[in-house]
This record gives sequence, structure tokens and C-alpha cells, in this order.
Amino acid sequence: MPPAATPLPDFAAVEAAAARIAPHAQRTPMLRSHSLDALAGSQLYFKCENLQRAGAFKFRGACNAVWALPQALAARGVVTHSSGNHGAALALAARTRGIAAHVVVPTGAVAAKLAAIEAAGATLHRCAATLAAREAMCEAVRADTGATLVHPYADAQVIAGQGTAALELLREVGTLDAIVVPVGGGGLAAGSAIAAHGIDADIEVHGAEPAGAADAAQSLQRGARIDRLTPNTLCDGLRALLGEINFRLLQAHRVQVSTLEDRATLAAMRLLWERLKLVVEPSSAIALAAVLAQPERFRGRRVGIILSGGNVDLAALFAAYG
Amino acid sequence: MPPAATPLPDFAAVEAAAARIAPHAQRTPMLRSHSLDALAGSQLYFKCENLQRAGAFKFRGACNAVWALPQALAARGVVTHSSGNHGAALALAARTRGIAAHVVVPTGAVAAKLAAIEAAGATLHRCAATLAAREAMCEAVRADTGATLVHPYADAQVIAGQGTAALELLREVGTLDAIVVPVGGGGLAAGSAIAAHGIDADIEVHGAEPAGAADAAQSLQRGARIDRLTPNTLCDGLRALLGEINFRLLQAHRVQVSTLEDRATLAAMRLLWERLKLVVEPSSAIALAAVLAQPERFRGRRVGIILSGGNVDLAALFAAYG
Repeated sequence: MPPAATPLPDFAAVEAAAARIAPHAQRTPMLRSHSLDALAGSQLYFKCENLQRAGAFKFRGACNAVWALPQALAARGVVTHSSGNHGAALALAARTRGIAAHVVVPTGAVAAKLAAIEAAGATLHRCAATLAAREAMCEAVRADTGATLVHPYADAQVIAGQGTAALELLREVGTLDAIVVPVGGGGLAAGSAIAAHGIDADIEVHGAEPAGAADAAQSLQRGARIDRLTPNTLCDGLRALLGEINFRLLQAHRVQVSTLEDRATLAAMRLLWERLKLVVEPSSAIALAAVLAQPERFRGRRVGIILSGGNVDLAALFAAYG
Repeated sequence: MPPAATPLPDFAAVEAAAARIAPHAQRTPMLRSHSLDALAGSQLYFKCENLQRAGAFKFRGACNAVWALPQALAARGVVTHSSGNHGAALALAARTRGIAAHVVVPTGAVAAKLAAIEAAGATLHRCAATLAAREAMCEAVRADTGATLVHPYADAQVIAGQGTAALELLREVGTLDAIVVPVGGGGLAAGSAIAAHGIDADIEVHGAEPAGAADAAQSLQRGARIDRLTPNTLCDGLRALLGEINFRLLQAHRVQVSTLEDRATLAAMRLLWERLKLVVEPSSAIALAAVLAQPERFRGRRVGIILSGGNVDLAALFAAYG
């Protein structure tokens, strides 16, 4: 017998998440830019999740997952494997509820990121840098502590939480013709699609994916999820494989995914730093790159862009300042 | 007979400016940071003027000056000498009213800044890089066109316009114990003091000035304005001499000015990029540096910080990305 299908989150779950995380998450600003509008030939509405707590939209999903747990379960803590934005977000979310967070990190992870996760109060568990080792270590922590696994993206509560960014954006600006988001594991893309279509079924939801990690585009094209990927992109937040539940949601919501070379993403990142004065990471800038690469598709339309995060290693720049 | 004293702007002028610029200026967001609060031991309220149009608070003053002109005078345009943020701000402000802007720029000015001023529709007038040459060229443009001079800071309408940032901040967050702003020519400092004391006479107004351009601190200390300065600081927005009218306002409002080494300013700038995810220029970061340098002074208090601008040359960083 196949395992029971995970129930898919719906618009009510996104609205519940919005209420649940409101006391803890930042209501991030929406910014506009005359010069970027002129460049794109569109009206762009930027939702600044780089200004979210812990520097990325990931806090929304982690926070929703943490606060959705029944008290008895929550008391035993949460665990995940992520050395990136989700690890830091879960650590911080756990702290808002006063529970333990365990983060499994591979050897060789960036020291600054690990320090941020520890600073947020999580316990680090080191393991070898393979998926098998990470999953084994997660399982060991669960067996040992009773902590609940909070997956970075293939989790209904995480997806519902990520959808609250698009929900806030749409409630602030009224309707949009399209909304464009980066695609990695598909948590943000799936959540955004649920939120958008809960408000207006005609909003187009576009995903932007690195050409060097284009499994979502290929999976949707062939109608079956690719489960193997050797990513080659500097968008470090978008190297994950699309999750299974995420794949089903992107299919159901007819999300269109376009692929971008890193060169185009970096050019968009520079524009965002210069024109919006925001520190965004490459994995964020790819959404603007997708709009600029398809001017005929977005011309004259109202387009929401979710700037997903701003966690960049600034050492190089500040070295230049001496 | 000495020249008649320029009338000083008052709180009513700041309120009038706020109404006048409202259709054109960005209502910039206020941001907070748990980690910066912890570092400072204070509650910090950051007013993000780096997100203002043209990337700096300067647009407020320029816009107020442009729209305060009677129509007949406005039709003949405006002129200033500034290759920095004020030049770009005045060019953009003039465009919002559909009038000509003339910007006198010294030879050797940064090409990217000149391109930005021209892109906003201004006419550039090049001259030698001395104050005498700039003033002579300004005078020639005025004689030729009838354009009105809009000084970067020693101007009542400019000062009133700059005060609208503090006004917005105070109206958003309620009262503050102190407000901290960078000091160059003193337009922002004077306007902020007028706005703050129009709302609550007990708010302390602090200025932050580079140790390598400390004429405001020295002028206030000795009770007479220093009119000579050889600046040595990388805070390129703070190299100007305090204006005469600005000096009188800072005296009247008991503005306290502290001086910071560039090293401390750069450390604060890095914190702002990393923790607030904002691109701010060194001339902005100096205000946070002043708070961090005086923990006993600000501990436990509600402190407003005006992040004045975000116009930084990003070439070095993006070179590092390849």
C-alpha cells in the first residue's frame, strides 16, 4: 500500500498562518521604483522579505510550523537539516516559543551561517555532507529527543507560512496581474500560488529557477517530478530539489517556471542594490531577472515580485573599503 | 549695514513642506532590528531615507524648494552646484514640476553621479573644482536664465523639507527620547531639530560628524561658526561646511554634535548592511556609529536614527562576484 498522500495546504491554511505568525513576524514593506518600472515596462511591486526576521521569508514558514504544534509535542522541540536560511529561521522561531531547536549541519558549512544559527539559540549537530548522513542524523535526534521534524519546504505548515508574504502583498496593493517568485524546493512558490489564487484565480504565478538547477521547470514540463539533480548555480538558496508536495501544488496552480543564467541574475541583483538600495541575495534577484528577460510577457502589467532574502557574505565588499 | 538676517524656518514650515511634497516624495519605511537593539542597549527606530527617491533625504528639501516657488519664477528653472545627492535630487524635483534644472559640476566629478543627474533631465554646467569657480558659474547661469538658486542646505525651504523625515518618523512611532542624524552642511540636522521640538521640546537632537570634518562640533563649542575646513573623511556627503543659518538653528535647538572616526562609521555601515539588509552610504551609517560609541548616553532609551542615503559605488562588490 502506498503511503497516504500528505494533505495539501489551502487558502484557509495560509490565512490561519497569517494570524498565527502575526505576533512574531515582521510585516515587511512593499517598495516601488520608478526606474525599474521604466526598465521593465511594467508596474513592479516588490515585497521585501529580505527585511524579514533572520533575513528571509523562511521565518514565516518556520514560525507557522513551530506555533502550529500542540503544546505537548512542541515541548520536545523541533529539528531540521539546513545550514542555510531555514536553519536560522527555525532556530529563531523556536526561540519565540521558548522551545528547543536542533539543526543538523554538514561538515564544511559556512562558519558565519553556523554562528548565526547558534546565536539564535539552536543546538548544532554535525554530520558528513551527504543526504544519507543528514537524514540519519535527523532521525537520531528525533529518536533521542522526540523533536518534530520541520522540513525546509516539503511541509504543509511551512508552505502555508510562506504563502503569507504574497497574501500581505496582495492585501496591500489590491490585485496584481502576475506574481513572480524564486523556485528552489518550492515552498515559497507553492505558498504564493495558494495565496494568490485564494484571492483571484486569474493571477498568473511565475517561478524563476537557475538554469543550473532547473528541475522544477523540467518536472512540470514532463509531468513527473525529477528526483535527481546536480546543481550548478551561485544561487545557494535554490539548489534544492523540488519537493513532492510542492510539485503537486505547482502543477495544480499552473505555475509557469522560467530558467535564468546566473549572469542575468547577478545583473538583476546589482540593479536591486543600486535602485532599491536593498541588500538582496542572488536567489532573490532571480525573480526580477525573469521579468526583465521576458519584457513582452509582462509589459504594461502589474507584477508582484517577492524579494526572498538578503543573506549575503559581505566580507568582499568591506575588504574593498579597507 | 549688515545684510538682513534670513528668516529661520519653523515647525509650521515643516508641516507645510510635508503637505507640499506628499504627492511626489516617498513615505519611507521605518525599520527596527532586534539584534541592533541588543547591541546598542536601546530601542532604535530607523527612518530609511536611503529608500527615498534619488536615494537620499535630499529629495525632500529640493522638492519643497521647487514647489514653493511662485509659478512665474518656477518657469525660469532652478540652479545649484552639487555633484552629489542634492544635484540629483534637485534634477528630479524639477522634473516633477516640469521645469528646467541647471546643475553646476566641477571637473573631476564622478561620471556615474553626473550620468544620474543628466538622466533625471538636468543640464550640466562644468567648471573648475574651486568654490569660486562654482559660484561664478552658478551666477552666470542665473544671469542667463533667471533660474532660482536652491542651495543644498543653507536655505529655509530646503531645511523645512529635510525636517519632514523626522516629522514622519515621530508621527509613526510616537514620542522618542532622542533623534540622531548626520551633520554636513546642517540641513537635515536643522530640519530634524525643528520637527522634533515642534512635537516635543524634550526630545534630544544629536548630530554625528566625521572627526575629519568636525566644523559643526567646533563651531557650536566655541559659539561662532568656523568658515574654513579641509575635510578628510570618506563620508563624502558630510564634507560641507555648516551653513550660517544652519549654525543658528543648531545653536537655538541645543543640538549636541559628537565626532566619529571613519573606522567606527564603516563598522556601523557593515552592521546596517548585514542586519537591516539596507544599502546605506557611510554618511548615513555615522548616526548609528554615534549611538554605539556612547552606550551610557543612549541606554534604555527610544532613539530615532535617520539613515540619510544609500548612494554607494557598488562596482567593487560586483567585481568580486565576477
